[in-house]
Amino acid sequence: MRAFDEIDELAVNNLRVLSAEMIERASSGHPGLPLGAAPMMWALWSRQLRIDPQQPQWANRDRFILSAGHGSALLYSLLHVSGFNVTMADLQHFRQFGSHTPGHPELGIVDGVEATTGPLGQGLGMAVGMALAERQLAAQFSKTSQLVDHYTYALVGDGDLMEGVSHEAASFAGNQQLQKLIVLYDDNQVSLDGPTSRSFRTNVCQRFDSYGWDTQTVTDGNDMTAINMAIERAQHSKRPSLIAVKTTIGFGAPQAGTNAVHGNPLGPAGLTSLRQHLGWRAAPFTVMPAVAQRAQQLILQRGQRAHQQWQTQQATLPQAVRQQFEQQLTMGLPVDLAASLPTFDEGAQASRITSHTVIQRLATQLPGLVGGAADLASSNKTTIEHDHLSTPMTPDQRNIAFGVREFGMGTILNGLALHGGLRVFGGTFLVFSDYTRAAIRLAAMMKLPVTYVFTHDSIAVGEDGPTHQPIEQLMSLRLIPNVTVMRPADPNETVAAWWQAINATDHPTVLVLTRQNLAVLPGSKSLAMTGVARGGYVLSPQQGRQPTGILIASGSEVTLAIQAQAKLAALGEDVSFVSMPSMENFARQPLTYQTQVLPPHIRRRVAVEMGATLGWERYVGLDGTVLGLDHFGASGAADQVLAANQFTVADLVRTYQQTHVGIGQQLRVI
Amino acid sequence: MRAFDEIDELAVNNLRVLSAEMIERASSGHPGLPLGAAPMMWALWSRQLRIDPQQPQWANRDRFILSAGHGSALLYSLLHVSGFNVTMADLQHFRQFGSHTPGHPELGIVDGVEATTGPLGQGLGMAVGMALAERQLAAQFSKTSQLVDHYTYALVGDGDLMEGVSHEAASFAGNQQLQKLIVLYDDNQVSLDGPTSRSFRTNVCQRFDSYGWDTQTVTDGNDMTAINMAIERAQHSKRPSLIAVKTTIGFGAPQAGTNAVHGNPLGPAGLTSLRQHLGWRAAPFTVMPAVAQRAQQLILQRGQRAHQQWQTQQATLPQAVRQQFEQQLTMGLPVDLAASLPTFDEGAQASRITSHTVIQRLATQLPGLVGGAADLASSNKTTIEHDHLSTPMTPDQRNIAFGVREFGMGTILNGLALHGGLRVFGGTFLVFSDYTRAAIRLAAMMKLPVTYVFTHDSIAVGEDGPTHQPIEQLMSLRLIPNVTVMRPADPNETVAAWWQAINATDHPTVLVLTRQNLAVLPGSKSLAMTGVARGGYVLSPQQGRQPTGILIASGSEVTLAIQAQAKLAALGEDVSFVSMPSMENFARQPLTYQTQVLPPHIRRRVAVEMGATLGWERYVGLDGTVLGLDHFGASGAADQVLAANQFTVADLVRTYQQTHVGIGQQLRVI
Repeated sequence: MRAFDEIDELAVNNLRVLSAEMIERASSGHPGLPLGAAPMMWALWSRQLRIDPQQPQWANRDRFILSAGHGSALLYSLLHVSGFNVTMADLQHFRQFGSHTPGHPELGIVDGVEATTGPLGQGLGMAVGMALAERQLAAQFSKTSQLVDHYTYALVGDGDLMEGVSHEAASFAGNQQLQKLIVLYDDNQVSLDGPTSRSFRTNVCQRFDSYGWDTQTVTDGNDMTAINMAIERAQHSKRPSLIAVKTTIGFGAPQAGTNAVHGNPLGPAGLTSLRQHLGWRAAPFTVMPAVAQRAQQLILQRGQRAHQQWQTQQATLPQAVRQQFEQQLTMGLPVDLAASLPTFDEGAQASRITSHTVIQRLATQLPGLVGGAADLASSNKTTIEHDHLSTPMTPDQRNIAFGVREFGMGTILNGLALHGGLRVFGGTFLVFSDYTRAAIRLAAMMKLPVTYVFTHDSIAVGEDGPTHQPIEQLMSLRLIPNVTVMRPADPNETVAAWWQAINATDHPTVLVLTRQNLAVLPGSKSLAMTGVARGGYVLSPQQGRQPTGILIASGSEVTLAIQAQAKLAALGEDVSFVSMPSMENFARQPLTYQTQVLPPHIRRRVAVEMGATLGWERYVGLDGTVLGLDHFGASGAADQVLAANQFTVADLVRTYQQTHVGIGQQLRVI
Repeated sequence: MRAFDEIDELAVNNLRVLSAEMIERASSGHPGLPLGAAPMMWALWSRQLRIDPQQPQWANRDRFILSAGHGSALLYSLLHVSGFNVTMADLQHFRQFGSHTPGHPELGIVDGVEATTGPLGQGLGMAVGMALAERQLAAQFSKTSQLVDHYTYALVGDGDLMEGVSHEAASFAGNQQLQKLIVLYDDNQVSLDGPTSRSFRTNVCQRFDSYGWDTQTVTDGNDMTAINMAIERAQHSKRPSLIAVKTTIGFGAPQAGTNAVHGNPLGPAGLTSLRQHLGWRAAPFTVMPAVAQRAQQLILQRGQRAHQQWQTQQATLPQAVRQQFEQQLTMGLPVDLAASLPTFDEGAQASRITSHTVIQRLATQLPGLVGGAADLASSNKTTIEHDHLSTPMTPDQRNIAFGVREFGMGTILNGLALHGGLRVFGGTFLVFSDYTRAAIRLAAMMKLPVTYVFTHDSIAVGEDGPTHQPIEQLMSLRLIPNVTVMRPADPNETVAAWWQAINATDHPTVLVLTRQNLAVLPGSKSLAMTGVARGGYVLSPQQGRQPTGILIASGSEVTLAIQAQAKLAALGEDVSFVSMPSMENFARQPLTYQTQVLPPHIRRRVAVEMGATLGWERYVGLDGTVLGLDHFGASGAADQVLAANQFTVADLVRTYQQTHVGIGQQLRVI
């Protein structure tokens, strides 16, 4: 390795000034981290990180995640200097609408950004997921090759480590002994509101020691040699590594060491002062030639050589291995996968049980399928029965014990999905989706095909009571953009919902499943696959040519609605019944299909779902009624809880009968 | 203190058998924790806990929270034995619908339950909040008395400590040196899915040491003398204390030490075996007389004596002090509080700024007002300027630096509110309400009047980009039962929204506030106070007798809508404009009022809000239009982001023009 010299110092100051200039030009941004952390970033990128800036999707590249996403200016500067497709003009348009350099790093906007970060703590969790993905894939392919063999690095700040998800992710990583995970901690003891002593005097190394990590401290954040040595030591550790690097926030700026430089531009005088302090005389937005040259040698060319070596080695592998790897990377599905899924003619089972069956079938055909639950595998029925737990001793096994860590699970699932090569799922009770909601949002924003298996989906949970009974969760999940929520009504719809999930490529899928049995519905065997794909469909039409009204339901309430439909028919009301497992899929259908399912002139509509009502008015309008739940549940036997909340056939029939369009209203067409 | 003897052993076994019998009778529940943790509970309750079972609301009682709420059977058994208003019949109806003994402890159902627990980790956070409340009130009243001087105890399990919120809360407590907080850790190394080694081998004491806690280990969970000594040591520590008590899950049951006894009844054979193992021969549901007598002496009578001493002492205090204390406990408001609030005739300011002004006025008149933010005080504008930070050295100061810990903040706010004597608020960006959502849910379930100050409420955040721009959060918060969400449109509505929040007694309030300026709206000075209370009101009526349509908006979009109304009037469209700061308040109004504001026959309706559209159909129906956002935001200057997302007057006018009721539809009255 080349010793650090004055050109490296020049590079660090170049990154510092570039970052500060970007922020100044944008009149917005966070100079504190870039000025303090530039040395550790340069040490890592120039001496250790194996990436190919011109082929940024190289499967075996090292991964780097800037968990402290507000330091994006530093990352973009480094991407530019390293030869990624980030131009000086991009840097000059930092934080501008439509630019390639948004305020926080966003996946898919610019090469070299491995994850969308900014919501603190989650970057660390995603790094843990990537390190786990690496171990999993290395184990899968290890018999034949070193196809997957790389490090995962992350840079975290004080804010990341205050967040609870950092505990969940780090504790998990320690237990899993993810030895190729190396985390640099920008230990500057200042956060947005002031010195961290206001709220955070935790001994971070001691904390990570308690998780089973290897910890080191670098006392001078400008000492690149020491930082680099610490990284190399960490590479040889048998445990995940935290390197606490003591830095000065806003190093070189007039208000260095204070929160004043955390999130505000330095201002013209501050920038001038910074340049003076660093002895920087170049014109604005300059990369010094010596810096460019060194970056080319030590980042671009070093990375390209590593990439070429890997390609040479890969070419010697058996074609079957290469094909399998390629198929997993491209998320390809075996052609006969659909045929392997079960169908149901009769009987009844909980949708979590059907889901369990589907998981077994998928696992047999998809070696890259991994998943688990947040210490509820036995309740969520998420275990791949043929496999054991993924552990340091059995890294090829595909069941992941996430622990009682819903949010951590969410971020780790994101990391697993980001890595490439795996399909992932994770389970907990629907009510605890609240804990992991912020990770689902990031999955949606990053367009990751993560599948969530959320069971115990209503007050039918029974005895565990209101803390365990979801009310608002179902509709709340539908509100997150780019998430597809599926609440299947019977075993056939459950298979179809999983089929939708496994075919997703650009969005996460939430499967909302029951604890209690669901009977196979008449017609679902032939209709469910298409119906679920369309999100809403007429599962049980009216008898005549035109219905007098429409019943709509999802999940376990479909059975109720079909019984109510029959009862209403006996009472002379000829209504149509629409099963609506996915509002999102329905909304994507052509208007002609939607109006066929829900004829606009039929205004007598009742929707029934054991969840919050707000939102169902999209389908029942001002004249219809929603039979739902706008209060918390209760502890008791499920049937008593349901009856007390008016989820019976009689209640639904009465609700329909009481729904009189236009009552008390002078309805008119304007 | 009386030494532990065979009657104490009998009491422990009595609690064990009672708990197991309750679960057996219910055919549902969690025997693992009660069997293992009965000794530590008995040691704590019989020798240390100062409570008055017959006056359970005694203000200066010690607090005890069962964070591992699934162990409720043990708590209920102990409440019964201790002389609380929990009968044997209540125990026999454990987990039955309508009983006083729901599956997880629920506040308000039975005396002696200090918090609703079950969602893991949150109980610890609430305990931290209670300990902080104790310190705060003790400091406020310390000059004259020991009016408030008690310990806060909690019992946590492995699941609690895996959850990230335990990190946030414990790290906060360590920094705050909450020395009167004592946490017993039921260290049984088993969780629902199996041994904790599957996912959790953290050195818990080392971890809590890193937070600045005092930690102790009791190696034999049946050694009550050792447990009691550890508690006494903890009482004298200057730091919060964790006592790790090594126990055997399901002690005495056939499958003790395994996850099989975590969450399932023992079964008849298992129960028989337990009784044999413990040498228990009494009839089912028996409390042995010696146990009852000891509980009466050591829990009830000891507590009553402590209560009487406190009352005697309190009676000597100046009346003004007693009155102030009483007023804070009963959440009374000074009569002239409303008059002290500002009104606005003109100008413009961000609603976060108006909120800041209101907080100052409230703080002057309400000594019990405390609050802060999750390291965003300078952005959320939540600082009480007259005060400093609440710290161990300045415990009477009312600004709380929660750190970058949104969820922890949520649970601590709940604990502060549960304690009594304080009014509390906490701030973060609206988008990060996701992180603390599960705590908001518990606040709502417990009917706690917590106020959340969520600022930066839309894509107008601008440069920080989609990770920091809320979309689905606003409507998602409206979905939580018993939460009142307020999104005020101008300075006068903001004052009115805070007024609603401060008058709330049985629900949390979410204030959704802007970063950007909001102009004072014509008419709001006179209309806002009543209008916000009603949730929705005609802020700007049509010109003629009947409107041809209705525009509805909240928050920053109200300005846009009023401008569009004027523009439409110029185009010959005479529409009414409804400001809707709170859907929940509007829904609580009489139907006559609702139909006056939104005449049912006026179907040409457009709602505009910079958030997810789903839900607004409640007010615009099948024929109206919602101008909202169903995709993530973007990084860029706010005005560009707004224009790109069609939030301009021209867009709203065009949307209204394109809303033609009945187009393509044969609307009819059935």
